Amino acid sequence: MAESADATLSSADADPAYREAVVDLLGVIAYGEISAFERLAEDAKLAPTLADKVDLATMASTELTKVHALSDRIRELGADPFVAMEPFREPLDEFHRHTAPADWYEGLVKAYVGDGLANDFYREIAAYLDPATRDLVITSMETGTHAAFVVDRVRAAIAEDHRLHGRLALWGRRLMGEALTQAQRVAADRDALTALLSGGVDRPGLDLAAMGRMFTRLTERHMERMGELGLDA
Amino acid sequence: MAESADATLSSADADPAYREAVVDLLGVIAYGEISAFERLAEDAKLAPTLADKVDLATMASTELTKVHALSDRIRELGADPFVAMEPFREPLDEFHRHTAPADWYEGLVKAYVGDGLANDFYREIAAYLDPATRDLVITSMETGTHAAFVVDRVRAAIAEDHRLHGRLALWGRRLMGEALTQAQRVAADRDALTALLSGGVDRPGLDLAAMGRMFTRLTERHMERMGELGLDA
Repeated sequence: MAESADATLSSADADPAYREAVVDLLGVIAYGEISAFERLAEDAKLAPTLADKVDLATMASTELTKVHALSDRIRELGADPFVAMEPFREPLDEFHRHTAPADWYEGLVKAYVGDGLANDFYREIAAYLDPATRDLVITSMETGTHAAFVVDRVRAAIAEDHRLHGRLALWGRRLMGEALTQAQRVAADRDALTALLSGGVDRPGLDLAAMGRMFTRLTERHMERMGELGLDA
Repeated sequence: MAESADATLSSADADPAYREAVVDLLGVIAYGEISAFERLAEDAKLAPTLADKVDLATMASTELTKVHALSDRIRELGADPFVAMEPFREPLDEFHRHTAPADWYEGLVKAYVGDGLANDFYREIAAYLDPATRDLVITSMETGTHAAFVVDRVRAAIAEDHRLHGRLALWGRRLMGEALTQAQRVAADRDALTALLSGGVDRPGLDLAAMGRMFTRLTERHMERMGELGLDA
């Protein structure tokens, strides 16, 4: 579909293939926020103090509030937001099922690393979008200042219990592996979305080498984040 | 403590007994929001559609965002917000344990009726507060437009299944009874908070007759809300 001769970067409304890709992209981001809300709200139950619980619950609420602007834009593009989200429920739910935290600290690392990885990926994709959609995607990535509390808590816990360091480092690798597995599944299923990245005849995209460099960047940023938490990636 | 000669309505900072009562009040409201967040996030799992889930999760997030302004004000009054919330955890958790919804519709009725009842009660108390605290309490009561979706969903469900009507009407009475039980428990435990309502030598309060009228008003509004949902109270 990306071969469409009138494909254009200027407006999501002009080209059906491009519009389909944007609806897919906004749908996956929106469902990602909903499932992040659900997981963070669930993980907040593991909080050792009421203050910690409020911090994680606030992260959950921040994710959820972004769903509304994404849904509005999907409606403007003539699609039903919940229909748009549907294809991504299974892979995202599967990701969360496979990465249910065993304790509070695994939950914190997941919140930080998972959110960061998703945001990096969407930011990469944003480069291939029209300005209006790009702004919306970038805005929905803003995580606020809540992430700082995760860094504090995890670093303090590792300093106190060195065995936690090894377990959480392993956990970070598992999160990355599971995220890649589900991302590949989505890429294989959603032609329009994949075509957005690989470009069209009149639209620049990523060749295999560029795709490889993108994954290298994502991996490097993941390693940086693990480093911020005081963990080896 | 309400007999304090310098008790004043003009500032929560002036009189220790009044300040203690305000810290209690803001503490119970704040923990009420946290526990409402937890219950609504949990009940959202029962949603029959993704759209319904987002609506209930949005109600949950709205409750949580109010916690921050309440916590800030408790800090201004020289208290730790989480210490202030602590005495109310057990009665509020107990309320939620005793009123765990059996299905999606019980969850919706609870969200609507429970939130409304709490707001009415805090609005009654607000009349006895200094203007700054009163504004904060009134602001934290604003529920937005999310409640409308509850009315729509419950009315539609009752129209389709008449047996649901009787079950939900009974459920509404149980919610009211359990709320009164826990409110009495709080009143018995928290002298400063109770003294706020009963007044002091230089401060008007509620005598028993006025207290009775207040409960009559709360009950009437509860019945109105049940009526809005299409249920007999």
